[in-house]
Amino acid sequence: MNVAKMKLDKPVAIIGAGLVGAGWAIAFARAGLNVRVYDANPRTAEKAIPWAANQLAALHKHGLIDEAPETIAARLTLADSLAQAIDGAAYVQESVLERVDVKRQLMLDLDKVADADVIIGSSSSGIKASDFACDLAISPRVLIAHPVNPPYLVPVVELVPSTQTSQATVEFTDALMRGIGQSVVHVRKEIEGFVLNRLQAALLREAWALQRDGIASCEDIDKTVRDGLGWRWSFMGPFETIDLNAPGGVADYANRLGPLYHSIVKSRVDDGPWDEALIAQVEKDRRQHLSADDLAARRDWRDERLMQFAAQRAQEDGER
Amino acid sequence: MNVAKMKLDKPVAIIGAGLVGAGWAIAFARAGLNVRVYDANPRTAEKAIPWAANQLAALHKHGLIDEAPETIAARLTLADSLAQAIDGAAYVQESVLERVDVKRQLMLDLDKVADADVIIGSSSSGIKASDFACDLAISPRVLIAHPVNPPYLVPVVELVPSTQTSQATVEFTDALMRGIGQSVVHVRKEIEGFVLNRLQAALLREAWALQRDGIASCEDIDKTVRDGLGWRWSFMGPFETIDLNAPGGVADYANRLGPLYHSIVKSRVDDGPWDEALIAQVEKDRRQHLSADDLAARRDWRDERLMQFAAQRAQEDGER
Repeated sequence: MNVAKMKLDKPVAIIGAGLVGAGWAIAFARAGLNVRVYDANPRTAEKAIPWAANQLAALHKHGLIDEAPETIAARLTLADSLAQAIDGAAYVQESVLERVDVKRQLMLDLDKVADADVIIGSSSSGIKASDFACDLAISPRVLIAHPVNPPYLVPVVELVPSTQTSQATVEFTDALMRGIGQSVVHVRKEIEGFVLNRLQAALLREAWALQRDGIASCEDIDKTVRDGLGWRWSFMGPFETIDLNAPGGVADYANRLGPLYHSIVKSRVDDGPWDEALIAQVEKDRRQHLSADDLAARRDWRDERLMQFAAQRAQEDGER
Repeated sequence: MNVAKMKLDKPVAIIGAGLVGAGWAIAFARAGLNVRVYDANPRTAEKAIPWAANQLAALHKHGLIDEAPETIAARLTLADSLAQAIDGAAYVQESVLERVDVKRQLMLDLDKVADADVIIGSSSSGIKASDFACDLAISPRVLIAHPVNPPYLVPVVELVPSTQTSQATVEFTDALMRGIGQSVVHVRKEIEGFVLNRLQAALLREAWALQRDGIASCEDIDKTVRDGLGWRWSFMGPFETIDLNAPGGVADYANRLGPLYHSIVKSRVDDGPWDEALIAQVEKDRRQHLSADDLAARRDWRDERLMQFAAQRAQEDGER
């Protein structure tokens, strides 16, 4: 993976060292940055660095890091307190529990101990920064930096400023994230679910409804994406896909197929899925394909496939 | 690509030899079947086989066919008439113009000359078989077999029976399509857009609306998918993705995140995108990223990437 080594003298602080936080630690350390890891729960903190060392070994196996795994792991250090973690840090990535009161309390704590120039990114996947990061001294320097898990494999990160975030904060975080090899998406207005989960919500809503109405099985809906739609989306995205799918580009495509797509969307008028009976039905269907005992092994398979995909993409993007 | 050689003594007929029909010809011939190609427009027909030979050479370069391209191309022959094309054929794949009157006329013509046991699949991407294939002698033997273009690269095919299609027809076509290496999705009830385009419509609707409302640029929405969502969807599909994304599987995921997703979907209440001003805006945005003059070259790039993707997937699925 083509990760530029960042020119940043100051360390990065990871606050909240669960899977997301520890994943971020890898992404920053891989790019040459020193990373301090802190979690309010000492047991979580202790597990984070050995876990990261394990992941680094796997990344090395797939040719996704240039340095020895130990060299990168040596950039990770545990911090004993929030104040110690962020002392002199250029950037803080917080990945504490996705609850507005927990995020707010962390912001109050950070406000007491943060340097006057530290930038703070939040891994929040749904809660807006304006809901927990406003009216503090640090407020202009806080924004959402929402990754896909794990951030060291899947490069996208959504940057979402609050109503009080400064432009300089957005620019710094944009440069930092690009510098460590992430793919930066700017969400210009705060909206529930940001961009990624809104797109996922729209597709999932249709998928659940098709299953509920007996149009297709879960497995066949999955096939439609993984053996069809997903191929193009994995390297082009939806707009480029349709832009290349009509002789005259996207306007040509929209004129030809807009009415059909509009009609499809208008035909989906029900209140949406996610009710208990339907969840039970889909759960039953999935457990027929994959028993609960096999979930963990299948997650390992997924992570292995993501690493293969990342290695392949790095090669193809290089040839692009 | 792991294409089993079919045991089918009779040939397959391709009716309508544009890009979709000629693509199908490759998919069948690659699997060892003799293919007769017919188009009402002789110029279209004449171009089809040289074009297919070209594509076969590219497939060979990517290691996607085991035989010499010439060996496979030799299985393709031009037919001078509809009757000649389907004489003694086991299966007909029609890919004529996507218009209900054109499809209906073809069915009337086929009804006059078809053997009593030939099965007829239609590449229709939106029109239901019940709208053009009913009340004929052939009706029990007609169904939709909707591919993604090109069918020799992207494996998914949606089988959609009409109200008059027999179960035997569905079963034959399922076996034939699996035999040539396609990934079969059964759409059990006729619905506008079938499964694939309904899922695409849902995601596109949200994408257009996000662009329209100034939440994110086309390019950033594309990034969100190609550098994020698309990675998992390219090998898992949406249900398996969420099934593996919570410790307890899909029900656990739905209980955690269902309310957020439901809320997102409910917040999208407008009438949908695809109006002229918005199309013009997206067209302008896309042309800034890719000039109209470069569309053709970028389509070649896409096809090259799809071939690389197919080669990689074949290898990974083999290791699965």
